Order: sequence, then structure tokens, then C-alpha cells
Amino acid sequence: MTLSEKRARLTAKATRQGAKRPAKGARRAKQWVYLFREGRASQKALLGGKGANLCEMTRLGLPVPPGFIVSTEACNAALEAGALPKAVWAQVLAALKQLEAASGRVLGDPLKPLLVSCRSGAKFSMPGMMDTVLNLGLNDTVATALSSQPGRERFAFDAYRRLVQMFATVVLGLDRQPFEDELAARRRAAGVDSDSGLDADALAIVTRRFLTLVHEQTGRPFPQDPHEQLRLAIEAVFKSWNGKRAVDYRTAAGIPHDLGTAVNVQLMVFGNLGARSGTGVVTTRNVSTGERQLEGDYLLDAQGEDVVSGTRTTRRIAALAEDMPEVAKAFARHCETLERHFRDVQDVEFTVEDGTLWMLQTRDAKRSARAAVRIAVELAKEKRLSKDEAVLRVTPEHVDFFLHPQFDAQARAAALARGDLLATGLNVSPGAATGAIVFDPDTAERLGRGEKKAVLLVRAETRPDDVHGMLAAKGILTSRGGRTSHAALVARQFGKPAVVGVSALDVDVEARQLTVKGRVFKEGDVLSLDGTTGEVFAGEVPTMVPAFDDPHLLELLTWADAARTLGVWANADSLRDAERARRYGAEGIGLCRTEHMFFEAERLPIVRQMILAATDAERSEALALLLPLQRADFIGLFEAMSGRPVTIRLIDPPLHEFLPNHDELLQEVTELETRLKLDGRQADALGLESRLSKQRRLLTAVEGLREENPMLGLRGVRLGIHLPALVRMQVRAIFEAACDCQRRGLKVYPKVMIPLTALKSELVFERKLLEDEARAVMAEQHRKVRYQFGTMIEVPRAAVTAGEIAELAEFFSFGTNDLTQTTFGISRDDAETGFLLEYLDKRILVDNPFATLDQAGVGALMELAVKQGRKTRPGLEVGICGEHGGDPRTIAFCHRLGLTYVSCSPFRVPIARLAAAHAALREGRRGR
Amino acid sequence: MTLSEKRARLTAKATRQGAKRPAKGARRAKQWVYLFREGRASQKALLGGKGANLCEMTRLGLPVPPGFIVSTEACNAALEAGALPKAVWAQVLAALKQLEAASGRVLGDPLKPLLVSCRSGAKFSMPGMMDTVLNLGLNDTVATALSSQPGRERFAFDAYRRLVQMFATVVLGLDRQPFEDELAARRRAAGVDSDSGLDADALAIVTRRFLTLVHEQTGRPFPQDPHEQLRLAIEAVFKSWNGKRAVDYRTAAGIPHDLGTAVNVQLMVFGNLGARSGTGVVTTRNVSTGERQLEGDYLLDAQGEDVVSGTRTTRRIAALAEDMPEVAKAFARHCETLERHFRDVQDVEFTVEDGTLWMLQTRDAKRSARAAVRIAVELAKEKRLSKDEAVLRVTPEHVDFFLHPQFDAQARAAALARGDLLATGLNVSPGAATGAIVFDPDTAERLGRGEKKAVLLVRAETRPDDVHGMLAAKGILTSRGGRTSHAALVARQFGKPAVVGVSALDVDVEARQLTVKGRVFKEGDVLSLDGTTGEVFAGEVPTMVPAFDDPHLLELLTWADAARTLGVWANADSLRDAERARRYGAEGIGLCRTEHMFFEAERLPIVRQMILAATDAERSEALALLLPLQRADFIGLFEAMSGRPVTIRLIDPPLHEFLPNHDELLQEVTELETRLKLDGRQADALGLESRLSKQRRLLTAVEGLREENPMLGLRGVRLGIHLPALVRMQVRAIFEAACDCQRRGLKVYPKVMIPLTALKSELVFERKLLEDEARAVMAEQHRKVRYQFGTMIEVPRAAVTAGEIAELAEFFSFGTNDLTQTTFGISRDDAETGFLLEYLDKRILVDNPFATLDQAGVGALMELAVKQGRKTRPGLEVGICGEHGGDPRTIAFCHRLGLTYVSCSPFRVPIARLAAAHAALREGRRGR
Repeated sequence: MTLSEKRARLTAKATRQGAKRPAKGARRAKQWVYLFREGRASQKALLGGKGANLCEMTRLGLPVPPGFIVSTEACNAALEAGALPKAVWAQVLAALKQLEAASGRVLGDPLKPLLVSCRSGAKFSMPGMMDTVLNLGLNDTVATALSSQPGRERFAFDAYRRLVQMFATVVLGLDRQPFEDELAARRRAAGVDSDSGLDADALAIVTRRFLTLVHEQTGRPFPQDPHEQLRLAIEAVFKSWNGKRAVDYRTAAGIPHDLGTAVNVQLMVFGNLGARSGTGVVTTRNVSTGERQLEGDYLLDAQGEDVVSGTRTTRRIAALAEDMPEVAKAFARHCETLERHFRDVQDVEFTVEDGTLWMLQTRDAKRSARAAVRIAVELAKEKRLSKDEAVLRVTPEHVDFFLHPQFDAQARAAALARGDLLATGLNVSPGAATGAIVFDPDTAERLGRGEKKAVLLVRAETRPDDVHGMLAAKGILTSRGGRTSHAALVARQFGKPAVVGVSALDVDVEARQLTVKGRVFKEGDVLSLDGTTGEVFAGEVPTMVPAFDDPHLLELLTWADAARTLGVWANADSLRDAERARRYGAEGIGLCRTEHMFFEAERLPIVRQMILAATDAERSEALALLLPLQRADFIGLFEAMSGRPVTIRLIDPPLHEFLPNHDELLQEVTELETRLKLDGRQADALGLESRLSKQRRLLTAVEGLREENPMLGLRGVRLGIHLPALVRMQVRAIFEAACDCQRRGLKVYPKVMIPLTALKSELVFERKLLEDEARAVMAEQHRKVRYQFGTMIEVPRAAVTAGEIAELAEFFSFGTNDLTQTTFGISRDDAETGFLLEYLDKRILVDNPFATLDQAGVGALMELAVKQGRKTRPGLEVGICGEHGGDPRTIAFCHRLGLTYVSCSPFRVPIARLAAAHAALREGRRGR
Repeated sequence: MTLSEKRARLTAKATRQGAKRPAKGARRAKQWVYLFREGRASQKALLGGKGANLCEMTRLGLPVPPGFIVSTEACNAALEAGALPKAVWAQVLAALKQLEAASGRVLGDPLKPLLVSCRSGAKFSMPGMMDTVLNLGLNDTVATALSSQPGRERFAFDAYRRLVQMFATVVLGLDRQPFEDELAARRRAAGVDSDSGLDADALAIVTRRFLTLVHEQTGRPFPQDPHEQLRLAIEAVFKSWNGKRAVDYRTAAGIPHDLGTAVNVQLMVFGNLGARSGTGVVTTRNVSTGERQLEGDYLLDAQGEDVVSGTRTTRRIAALAEDMPEVAKAFARHCETLERHFRDVQDVEFTVEDGTLWMLQTRDAKRSARAAVRIAVELAKEKRLSKDEAVLRVTPEHVDFFLHPQFDAQARAAALARGDLLATGLNVSPGAATGAIVFDPDTAERLGRGEKKAVLLVRAETRPDDVHGMLAAKGILTSRGGRTSHAALVARQFGKPAVVGVSALDVDVEARQLTVKGRVFKEGDVLSLDGTTGEVFAGEVPTMVPAFDDPHLLELLTWADAARTLGVWANADSLRDAERARRYGAEGIGLCRTEHMFFEAERLPIVRQMILAATDAERSEALALLLPLQRADFIGLFEAMSGRPVTIRLIDPPLHEFLPNHDELLQEVTELETRLKLDGRQADALGLESRLSKQRRLLTAVEGLREENPMLGLRGVRLGIHLPALVRMQVRAIFEAACDCQRRGLKVYPKVMIPLTALKSELVFERKLLEDEARAVMAEQHRKVRYQFGTMIEVPRAAVTAGEIAELAEFFSFGTNDLTQTTFGISRDDAETGFLLEYLDKRILVDNPFATLDQAGVGALMELAVKQGRKTRPGLEVGICGEHGGDPRTIAFCHRLGLTYVSCSPFRVPIARLAAAHAALREGRRGR
């Protein structure tokens, strides 16, 4: 029996003893210290994540080097007292006795020396943030004795010099540099490149120099008493909890500062004792693809850090079966045990010491989005998890991955290394894109249409006139605008990657160039942007596009659908949107913005004619031209969504949005006036005058529709009341389309939605107007269409008086973008590039309320509206169709409110399906 | 005993009998018809206003011609049945019997004919809207018999022709014209100007022609049966309730359509039976001045309509004592009885028939504002009313009269007659003004300052730069802007009459002229305007200014103060405001808008420097200049309000309001650019270029601060967080001023108020910042000032989360202007000249929510805020300082909510004191 085998037996014995040992004495006083066999995985708060899992592995009978844990409570007590309390130290000594008994070794004994590690381990993993000391127990006597064992000479001094070095920097707080310098000098003297080239003699010298350094720097010799070493090491680990690095990390990660860390004191095992030793890090499945096979690397005759550092070429874990067949078999069995026990893929560290396998750590493995989905689905199929649990294992971010192009990770790293990251802006529409930059929508369309050439449209900000260019571009980049600017809204709607509000960009459309960080990019130069992160790179960063056809994902989403009670609908304005929405699993259209149809290039002139009409007849003429276009739009939607509800919101935005830009017009008029004034007889005076008179009329019209606060102006239902002919045309288009589809055997279910309602009386007026028209169309067409008449709830008054509003409205839909604006009194257009950033920066706001719903304010109004609305009309259908409808936290809130559905961009539909399932599984299912 | 005397006795007898008569039979069946002696004044809903008062006079024993009332219930029954129900008619016949018995006359009896009138009388007076038929009971036989009585020949046929004419048009619905034509032909034949010139023979002929006309037009003879006449007349009056005229009137006046009208059937008495007959209309006190003496007119030998029509010169009622001393004495006694009984000044109609006085009608008299106050106070002093009742007799409009100049009523009528009413705009600031028009503030100041010359400032709209001109002008007139535009707000604040948003005006500032209705007015031409009504006149319409020193009013307001529980504070930004507020009875300052101090001409450049500062040092320099100015402002306020709270709101408006107009700058820059481009070598190129570069910089700065929706942008508390140095300067100014005043023995109580709060965390940030500064100042000054830190509640989120907000805020003040904007999602600037007018016009809104608080929406949020705020902080002081604080209906609502105070413009303070008293008296006193 080798020494290692003996140890392993002893471990098993200690475990058995532990199970029998009466805990009577321990219960009388507070327990600060726990043997591995005393804890379990659920005690992470008390024992730290690492320690709790070591306990669990010990309980499972896996070969874990024995040890004990000084608890997080002891940490807090020590931090409060400023030193390790006596009661704690007494328990440490008692545990040490157990450890000595179990290992058959004694701390400080030159013949059978016990060497231990002392590692921090908090409830939440804080990688690299806190301290570790290895090889405690060595001193001059022990090291010398150890070095006299056969084949251990070099090992002994290497271990000792490591202890002194770590102890000096970690426990005594000395500068690392003199130690590194000493090693470097020794390497130079020996003519070798790495420390592993130093022989036993060299290391013995190094060790002596280190001991001298410690004495010089601290005025005291290195503690030769191993107990003293241990006590100081435990104290140092506890203190590191309040080190600057750790505090900063916790602040950034949102981890509370009062948890404290535990300390794991464990028998040292060594993978660097020759060819029958080794060490490795393995995941129980492939965490990139999710495939079911061990994945990882190991090295023979090496220590853990050698596997990670990459200085030696590692071997794939599969090779272990050749190197050490028995160990490999046992390891695979242990992995299986762990995965089965923890019910998830594990990330495992192991060491083989002289032919004996030791399991050093296990934890749930990090994984890629693709792997996360596959693993969850397969674990469920293997009956390790229920389907509901599998659904909960996948996050919305995992699903999002499948929906957008990504930068190739290596290419991005290379670009970062080249210094090509130009700026970071608002990440308003996810996905990566690369292409030649263009500065106007016409060029974008000319070059980009039909995938001819990959272009990025760059603008200071976008306007409705730009939409055709945005559609033709691969991505959108603006220097101004916020999370709900025109650019952001349109980009999200069409799934175009977009980064906006990049104030570092200086966009000069006339000169067709942009300047950033002193670098100038001309039209045609290639940039890359990532709307998921907000990064903008110079040059091409290749992208890869995951397809929405991953069979595991599709299966998982059907499980999510079974779990959720909240409906998931989509916001879709076009046939293309609707088809995508359906493909992604939407159960209806919750918002069709009819005005988006008006922005199309060929329609805008007619829309302008309608707006600027001097007479009713002129207006009717324009409306008559728009009618067949709108009808065709609706036919497309009804066809795509056959059998499903289609919610059509009547025209909403202020009319000036359809007109030319005021400031540009004013500039043109002023310029023309100045030119005519300066030289009225110039060659083209007549042409100038006619142009001036035309543009002046247009300017007057634009100024007539200009508003101080357009967001609060003539829009929504107010527009319908002001221009009844316009909404009547829209309703006619809806019902003519519905009758047409119905005649062809399709099932149609239109829902007519009125925006921006504040008063019941507005609905009284509109409902009469619109239902008269609907009935007229149905009578003409000799058909009966099932439909509903409802309203957006997007100003606080509507929420507060929802009881009254529900007398008229057959459904509600929360327009949370506007509701957030009016509830806060914040214009998103202005705030998101301005003071809202300042608020987030100063932590006056924790979340951007335009991204994640403000539950305390806006949410309270929604709750009121749901309650009052359903009091008037039990079972009232209530949805949400603001941008928030695709945000997982908002979705959970909507579930709690008992909404009927959330409606979001088609690209968010799969995410919303998952988030809705999560809400139902975590908070209980609710009736609608 | 004359016939008349006999009748009077019989009336008295009938009254006595009525009192004894057992009502047993009547109680068994539904009672539709009431004798005058059966009703009382409180039964106006059942008997109509006129009838109920006739009953009351009868009960008082006054000489009322006997009669009965067919009730409003009968009317509704008849309208439902389409004809007079039999049960009703049976009761009419029974009442008629009583009337015949009481009068000693019989309907249709040729010897002792009973003639009756049939008049409508609804619960609410609808003057001239419904029908009357007189002289019912006449027919060929009766008329002929009557004409044979001595001296009654002409009277008989005049009465008969009137009956036929009225009956034909009112009851039978025939066209009036043929009857008028017939009379005209007869007048021509007789060679006289008026019908009174026609003799008995002529009238007999007219009567016959009329009878023929009726037969021709209806195909049936005029009904000779007097019962038939009566039945048809009653039915006709009932039907007239649903006539178009009456329905329109009720819709406009807000009277319900289901009340029905009663019909009064009453013995005819005649004031045109010679020199011992007459008729008059009198009020029991002077309704212009309130003086205690009968006031009115009468005519001898005349009918009621002659007094009103003005065809004959009437006599003052005082003369009656000479004409008929006994009658005059009796009449004065009756008036005294009525005033005492009804406890208010009465408007009385009487007729003297052949020496016998008959009281025909009494009702509460309409009166001028001045009279209303004096009458109420004097009635209380005469112990006719309690002081509380006197307070309730005076309306807010009455009080308002004392606070603003008025057009001289005759001069206004003359101007109307001349066609000088040019237009009507928004009546945003009450009072009348007349003066020479000027088109810019500097001219206004130059000409108008120190009352040198009366000028009206005319602008398209006003801006902060215009304030000095507005202060120098007598009145403000703009073609654009709404009820809460800059012009309106400033005008109300300073009590300047203003009419804004007069879209009919074409204001050409450059040409210094305005065009309206095709008339052109140049600078210096005189106009007149009335901010109470919105009227704009050409030329001078003289005004008269009531002083706020009417002793009756001052006394009444002290009674109001004793009755109310709601505090009345004022919004005041300057010493002058504060002094006026105190004079008008304000108990504190509820809102001092510190930024109004920044708009003053000498400060604006410093404010601009502060805003445009490129460095912190530059900004500090500007703030250092502003500090002593602000401190002086606050010293003035504290002095004026010594001992009373002064609530100071820190800077609120978006910064761009302090900067030059964007569009004008853009025009200038474009013009300069164009000029330089066209001819770079022109003489003043260098000057142009330097100007261009300066203005370009300014334009860039203005554009940097420009916002899409400034109302929802960087303002209020957000500004304080963005520019802490600015609000810190303001707080320093407040506390330095407070310490200074305290040192001089004044009592100061500053309340620092944060605007536009939406988040508790904003207050956490601001409170720390500001209280640190306050404490620093107090430490420097070695003084301790009692103060509070509070917030406006003016966005819905603050109302919804008021419980949290109250953890930081020591008081709340509702900013209902902004709260209304955000609750509705309506920009007042845009809406009040736009769709809000359309809404009011279409009755989608009944009241402008910026004038009268929207209780269902905004009010519900206020209620929530009060409740939650006081849950956190019991007894929390809550006020309102929006424009609504001066609106009586809003004040009543604030009383119901249990607010601590309302704060309004100094000019509304007396009105608010009265309105608060009304609320307490009507709804019960509440603890604050």
C-alpha cells in the first residue's frame, strides 16, 4: 500500500467515523469550524461555495483530501474582533487533530509532516479576488527532512520556497517584486528559462534568500511554527474579504458586503510527484456544444496552475484512459456520480498523486448559450430534470444568442488587441454587423438593397425619411438619440443591429465622413458594430449568424409554452414582421403601428398631400389613394396571422413627423431670401423666387403643425378626433381587408385599438365614428366580421380612470413607453442621451425605466388599471405592447399582474416565451 | 264694493276654505293639480318656480289672483301619453270649479265670465323659451256680452283678438305673419301708428278676420268652447317643453331634459282698465348699489309688456305714493313681507286693477356684484341671515369684480353698436385696459413706464425677454399662446389684463402694425381689451377701477375667514407681489418661483453667462454675481411676510428658456453664411465673419440645450442634480437672507421646495446637498433658522409613490399645472390654442382641465398622494400651488381632500378666501 492509498483509506475511515461521532459537545458551544464530513452542499452561506461542495463530495464517498472549514460566521467574528477569536482557534486546533488522525500525519512532524492548503471560499464565487496559501506546515526542519526522502529533494525545496513566497506576499503583505527578482536572478545564473529548470540546489538557495527577505522586510524571521503559520494564514484570508480588490468586485457584481468568506484548510496533495502523478480540469459535458462527453485537459507530473497557464501543452482528457486506465475509469465514474447528484454539468478539478485519484473541486459548469439549451433538454430527456426544471435552466440571454449575428470571438479579440475599438454607444438593437459606411439612406439603398453590398448607415440621428436606407443597411450607427429614438425603435423592429447615441462620433454628412478619436473614416470605409454590447470597431470583424432552427431550442420552447400562462404576441407592422412573428411563436399581433406604413417612400408624398390639404376634397383624394395601400397591408397581416388576433392601432404620431424637417426648411428659405435680397437680377432669379414661394408655403404649413412638446400634443386619439376622415379610412381598410380574407376562407380577428386615450368621452366619440364605418363596410360586403374595439393605456389618466374607460373599451393594451414618459414626466428622446445617463451614473436610478419597467411607479398605475378595468368588465383582456414587453423582468411583473399577454418585437418573442414560463414556474400559474 | 274688491275678498275666503278642506279624496288618487293655497315655495320641482312662489305668496295672505297649477308630473305624463290624461283633465275641471267659486265667475258665462291665463313655469327659469296664452274664456258670445258693459267695448275686442292671435300661433302652431299683416292693414286703414290707436270697431273687425284666418288655415273654426280652449292651451304649453327653442336652451344651460314644466292657470287681472289701474316691476332693494330702498318702475293704465317694452315713459316706484297712496303703502308692506319671508331681495311684479292691488310674481332678484356684497352684509346685520349665510350669498365672481378694472358698461355698449368689436380671444387675465398699441417691450417700457402713457403690448407671443415691457403696459394682447402661455402666466401674476391666442390678429412686429378683420392698426393707435371676457375693441373704451377697499367686502371676507378651515396662501415672486398678497389676506407664500427673478433685464446676461460657462470657474463667477441679487429678493419676501411661511421653489424651467430664440439665431447664421458665400470680399466681410463666428457659437450652445419635449426634459430637480452649484447658490441666498432678517428681529420661516420630483432618490441627493449648504450658512452666521425641506408633487410618479417621497419631504405642494399635463399627456402650450378648444367645442371635455382641476383623474392622484404621504408622515402639510389654486371648484375639492392650504395669484386670494369658506360651510369643516 502506497502512502497515497493509505491516505485514501484513512479518509474513508474518517468519513465513517464522522457519521457516527456524537456532535453533543459541539452543540453546546457555537460551532465555528466544520470537518468536510460535517457539511453539505446546501450550506454555501455558512461554508462558502467551494467548501460546501467539498463537504458534499466527501459525503458522496468520493476521494477528497480531508480537511475542514472555518465558517463565514467565524470570518465576520474575526473581522469584528480584529483577530481570530480564541474560541475559533481552539476549534481549528481540534479539527486539525482530526485531520492529523485521518491522514496519519502531524503538523510540523519532520517524519510524517502534514502539509495543508488554506483557501478562501465565499458564498458566491469571486475568482482571483481573494487569497490562497499552499504548503503550510513546511519549515526549515520539515523541508530538510522531506528533502532527504528518495526523489523528493527538489520537490521539498520547491514546495518550501513557494510557501515562503506566498506567505510573504499574501499573509505578510510584502511586495511581490523582490521575490520575482530573486527567482529571475537565479534563472539567469542557472541559464534556464523557467522555474521548472531550477534544480534542488538552486531552489534551496532561493528559499534561503526568501527567508532572509522576509526577515529584512518585516524585522522578524519567517514563522517556523506551523501552527503559527496556519493561524496567520486564516487571519489573512479573512482580512482579504475587505481588501480593495474584493470590495470593488462585490460592488460591481452586486454581492452584499456582509457575507464574509470561509476558509478551507485541506490536506495538500501533489500532482507533480512524477509520471504516476498529474492534474486536470474537466467538464462533465462539452460546454461549447452541449455534447455528452467529458471535455477538458490534464498534465502529467504537474500542478494545477500549469494546466491553466498554457506553458506546457496539455492532453485531452480522453487520453487519460491510455495514461492511467484505472484512474480514468474511476474518474469517469466520479464525474457521473457528481452530475447525477448535482443534476447539472460539473466543472471538476482533480489531482493524481502517485497513482491515487483525488477530487479537488466541483461546481456547476459555465457554458455557452447553445450548450445551455442542449444540456437542459438532454438532462430532461435523461430524466435527470423535469421539463419545467430544464426550462428554468435556460436564461433569456441564452435564447437571445440564437437570434442575432455575433462577432467571431477570436476576430473580436484580435480587433481589440489592434486598438480598433473606436467607441462604445447605446446597445439598442442586438446583433453584430460589418460593412462599408454610407451617410444617407439613398446611397444605403442603392448599394445595399438586395444584399448587394454590406453597408452600415451612419447618421447623426435618423428620421422617418431614412427608413428605406435603414432597411437596406446591415446596421445602424448614430451619434445622437437614446434607447427609444427613432433609430433604436426602427432597428429593433426590423432586427437591424444598431448602436446609437455614440457621442464620440462626429458625423459630417455633407463631407461624407466621420471622425472619432482623431481617426477619419470616409464613405466606403469599413466599420463593424455590435448592437448587443454597443461596441464600434474600425475595419471588418467577421460575424457568424446562428439560425433559429436549433432543434433543442425549439423543443425547449415548446416546454416553455406548456409552462406559461401569459400569452406572447408580437408587434408587427408588415407582412414580413408578421411572418417572422409567427415563425418565432407569436400567438397574435398585439400592436400593428399603422403609421409605419405611411413612412414608406412611395406613400410619404400622398401622406403629405393628405396633411397639407387645403380643402376636404383634396384630403379625401389623398385618402382615397391611401385606402388600397392600407387595405393591402392589412390583407398581408391577416393572411400571415390567420386564426389569430391582429391588433391594429390607428394613427398615433404627430403629423409633423411626416413633413420635412423644420430647421432645414427654415435654412433654405432664409438662404433663398438672402440671395434674392442681395441680387434680385441674377440669372436664375425667377427660378429662385418660385422655389422660395413654394418652400415658404411648406414652411408655413410645417410651422402650423409645430408643437412645443409634440409628445404631449396633437397625436393619438386626438388626431382621430381632429381628422375623422383619416381614421375612418383606416377602419375601412381594416374591414375591407377582413371581409376579403374571410371570403377566401381565412379566419380573421381584427382588434381596433385607439392610442393615447385619456378620457372616456374620447372613446365615446371614436367608437361611434369607427363602428359606424365598420358596420357600413360589413353591410356593403354582406359579411360579418368578429372584432373588438379597445384602447391603449398610455397616459396616467387612463390608468386612474380605467374603470370608466373599460365601459367603452373591450380590451386594454399598456403602451408603457408613453406611460413611462408621462408617469415620470420624462421625454425619452431628450433624457436618454442626457440626464438619464447622469441619473444612472449617480445611482439615482438603478435601471433605465425605458428598458426595464418601473414597477413602483408605472407598475402601480398598471395594477390600478387592471383592477379597475376588470371590475367594470370581468375577464377584460389586458396586454402590454411597449418596448418593455420583451424585457424578462417586466414579463415576470406582467405575469404577477395577471395580464393576458405581452407583445414585443418578433425578435424578442422566443425570449418572451421563455421569460413567461420562468415567471409561471417561479411565481405560480395565474388565470388570465 | 267694486267688483275687484269683491274678488279680493273671495280670494281670501277661498284661502281660508282651502286650509280647512280635507284632502282625503285627493290623497286616494295621484294629485296632478294643485290650488295655489295647496303648494309652497319648496315645491319648485313639482310646481315650477313661478307657481311655487305664487303658492307661497297665497299662503302668506298676499293678494294673489286665485288659480291652480297643473304639475310637472302631469306634464311628463301628458308628454308620454301624447295627450292630456283623463285623470289630469278631471282634476283640472275640479280645480276650475274651485276657481269659479272663489272668483264668483264662471268660465264661458256671458254675464260673469271667468277669464284665465295659462302660463308655463318650470323648475328653473327659462325666460321667453316657452309659451303663454292669455284671456282664455272669451268667445263670440262672451266677448260681445263683455263689450256691452259700460266702458268695456274696446277692451272686450282687444282682449278677444289677443286671445285668438295667441291661441292661433301658440296652440294651433300657425304662422304669425298673416296676423301681423292683418293688424298692419287695419292700422293703415285707420291711419294710426300703433295698435293702441285702433278703436273698438276696428278691433272687432280684426277679431273677425283672425277667426276667419284660423278657420282657413286649420280647416276648423276657432274653438268657442272655453273648456276646449283651456285643455288645448294646457297641452300646448306642455308640448312647448320639447320645442326646439326650449331644448336648445336647456342643453346650453345644462338643465336636465326630464324635468317637465308646470302650467299656471290663473284668474286674469287687468292693469289697463283706466287711471285707477296700472302695473309695475320692482326690486325690494337697489340691485346696482345694494341700497335699502324699493327700486323699479310702473305705468298707469297699462299692461305688463308696456313697462318692459319702453314704448311709454315709465314712472319711478317712489311716485306711486302720490298716484295711489293706499296702494303704495300696501305694496311696500307686501314687499317687506316677501323680503323677510324669502330672506333675500325680491324682484316683484304687480298689477293694480281698478284700485285693487294684485301681486303677480316674486323671485330672488338678480344684482350687481357690489350690490350682492352689500345686501348680504346688511341682511346679516339686520339679523335676517347668519354671517355664514351671508358668506354663502356672495359668489367668487362677485368678489372678482372688486379686483379688476371694468369697461364702463355704456361705453362698451356703444362700441359694440359702432361695430368696434374686433375679435374675441382667450380671457386669460381678468380686467379691462385701453391704450396705444406698441409692438416691442422696449417701446412699451419707454412710453409706459411710471404710468407716463397707457400702452398695450401687442406680440405674436411673449418671451421672458418681454417681461419689462409687459410690466410697463396696461394690458397684453397676443395672437398665439394658450391659457398657460408665458403671456398668460405673467399677466395673471402681475394682474395685467390680457387676451391671448387671438388667431384673427395678424401681428407684424417689423412693420409695427396689426391687421384684423381687414382693418390695419399702426403703432400708437388705440385699442381696448377685456381680459375678463376676451374682447378686443378698436378705439378707447373707458374703464373704471373698483378699489379693494369696499367696507362691506372687507367685512364679509373676515366672516369668510372665520368660516373656512383651508389656508389661503399666495404665489409671489417679488416684494411687490408679497405685499399685495398680504394686503389681500394671504397667510403665507406657497410658491416663490426663483427663476422669475432671473428673467429681469439686468440679470439675464449673467444667467446666460452662467448657463453657457465653459468652465466651472466661469460658472462660479456668474453665480457669485447672482447670489447678492437673489439674497436681496429673499430679504424683501421675508420682510413682507414676516412671521409667515415663505415657500421658495428652486429653479425649475429648462435652461434654454433663458437663451435667445433658436429659430432667430438659425436665420441670422444662415443669412450671414449666405452673404459671405455670395460675396466674401464685400466691404464689411470682416465684421460679418466675426459676427457669424460669435452667433455660430451661440447657436451651437442653444442647440446643445434644445430638447424635443422641453416640458419633459432637463428641468426641475433634474437641473439641480445636473448643476448642483446653481441650487447651492440659491439655498445660500435663502439662508443668508433669513439670517439677515432674523438678526434684525424679524421672524422668518423659509420652506425650501424641490420641483418636479419623481423619485425618492432625487430627494436623497438634493436634500443632502442643500441641507449641507444650509447648515454651512447657519454656522457661518452663528444663527439657527427654522426651516423645512419639501417637494412639489407634479408628476404622476411622485403621487403614486408619495409614501416613499414623504420619508424625505417634510411638506408637499401639488403643482397641478404640470400634474395635469403629465396625467393627461397634454402640453398646455400646444393644446390650449389647438385641440383642447376642439375638445371643449365637441363636449369631449366639459371644462378646460388647466382652468378647473380634473377631479376624476388628476384629483384621484392627489387623493392617493395625500393618503400615502400622511400615512408615512402623519399631519403632513399639503398645499396646492398650481394655477388651479385660485379656482373655486378646485378649492372646494382641495377642502374635501383635507389639504392644508391653497396658494394662488395675489389677485385670486380674496376669491380663494371666500371659496374656501363656501367649501367649509357646504361640506363641513375639516381638520387639516
